[in-house]
Amino acid sequence: MATRTPIYEGKAKQLFEGPEPGTLIQHFKDDATAFNNKKKGTIRGKGVINNRISEYIMENLTDMGIPNHFIKTINMREQLVYALEIIPLEVIVRNVAAGSFTERFGIDEGQPLGLPIVEYCLKNDKLGDPFLSEELIYAFDIAEPIELEEIRMQAMRVNDYVSGLFHGIGIRLIDFKLEFGRHYDEEGRSRILLADEISPDSCRLWDIKTDEKMDKDRFRRDLGDIEEAYQEVAKRLGVLPNADVTTFDTTKEKPAKKAAAKKKPSPKGKKKS
Amino acid sequence: MATRTPIYEGKAKQLFEGPEPGTLIQHFKDDATAFNNKKKGTIRGKGVINNRISEYIMENLTDMGIPNHFIKTINMREQLVYALEIIPLEVIVRNVAAGSFTERFGIDEGQPLGLPIVEYCLKNDKLGDPFLSEELIYAFDIAEPIELEEIRMQAMRVNDYVSGLFHGIGIRLIDFKLEFGRHYDEEGRSRILLADEISPDSCRLWDIKTDEKMDKDRFRRDLGDIEEAYQEVAKRLGVLPNADVTTFDTTKEKPAKKAAAKKKPSPKGKKKS
Repeated sequence: MATRTPIYEGKAKQLFEGPEPGTLIQHFKDDATAFNNKKKGTIRGKGVINNRISEYIMENLTDMGIPNHFIKTINMREQLVYALEIIPLEVIVRNVAAGSFTERFGIDEGQPLGLPIVEYCLKNDKLGDPFLSEELIYAFDIAEPIELEEIRMQAMRVNDYVSGLFHGIGIRLIDFKLEFGRHYDEEGRSRILLADEISPDSCRLWDIKTDEKMDKDRFRRDLGDIEEAYQEVAKRLGVLPNADVTTFDTTKEKPAKKAAAKKKPSPKGKKKS
Repeated sequence: MATRTPIYEGKAKQLFEGPEPGTLIQHFKDDATAFNNKKKGTIRGKGVINNRISEYIMENLTDMGIPNHFIKTINMREQLVYALEIIPLEVIVRNVAAGSFTERFGIDEGQPLGLPIVEYCLKNDKLGDPFLSEELIYAFDIAEPIELEEIRMQAMRVNDYVSGLFHGIGIRLIDFKLEFGRHYDEEGRSRILLADEISPDSCRLWDIKTDEKMDKDRFRRDLGDIEEAYQEVAKRLGVLPNADVTTFDTTKEKPAKKAAAKKKPSPKGKKKS
């Protein structure tokens, strides 16, 4: 594989220029961070599993008429996606109180919310992703009212579908974070597309019978069996790769030796400061 | 059990007065009809299975903040529901072309529709449930625009959730029929509630891998293994009753001897002419 042009490196994913204009390669890393980067670590095989889970869910959403950035899977860690103008919002849909929501409102974790709640936070690590009202989103010119209406509608549809999908395999979707972007056609018209990923990194997933956490909270809260939890989600969805995902690495530039190799300077290793 | 007051007898279900004002008992029969009553038969154990499946889905919909008429299960064939003023519409949501839709538009069965389509038919057996536009629904005073908007929104949400639920267990929700009604509170204010049932009687369900039909089309088209198909759906949802559902009968007035007994006149056997 020739040297590729890195576009953006996030905490758990990296974006490269795609083979055609208007496309990007989304690479899923094993790196994990929590508490706004204060906690860092590696979940072996996470990138491979999240690539598969996100592919599966995005493809199903396309079938349901919910458009999204996913085009096709390239390899075990990478997928081709549409290049979008990302809207700097973390769109959070909550079905059950958990995480920061319990602290903000003094509600016990696990309390059902009665109906799904959509929240918006500014995607800005330095500021700690502050909570936004719709009024602030318009005031800051982050999105137009018609765009936010579309985002909210799509987020609700995704939540309904994905909640059902997980219920089918004995898992409750407690809450999750979505990102959206503007996709421009050749005439410059834009439409809102779901972007990013849907995976145990971005969802809170609890086993329906045991309430056991099957998501990144196992990493955040040092609950152990992190790899096993991610694998179990993939297994129940029927998308667990056959290969040993903990060592699989498709980036040809370096040997398959896990995260340590990423610290070496390389064309794709240039981190944003 | 004392004699109960029958309220309505449909093709596959019967309604009795409930224990409290504003409630009804919904009894699931094994009777099956198709092609507007031209074909009649019995699917042994269907009532028990549909009761369980519908209970499970309605309860999950309540958890998702989608209100519906289900209150609680009474026994293997009966559930307590809210008494509604039923809106005489068959609300059909289609994800994949099948059934009458393929004939009306000359489309092959199995062709995905790109996005869910909501259709409305007048619930009127004599007229063959004719297709309605929104304009006709208002013209005939069947529902107010604000009610139809709510019905459409709920139908879409139910479709997203139930599609996900079935995808999780390897089944595609091809299309289904929903009914809605007005539920009046003590002050006479009404709200729209999902009514009826969600089951292999009201849904087209195909196995994702084999495209095998797992619904009433097996009866309509004489495909055989009807009971087994209904049981498989319940089994995958994790709600298959342990007892032999083909003989189970909870109506105490008569011995558990299947459909033949139903022809005897009895307080609950009064059929509408």
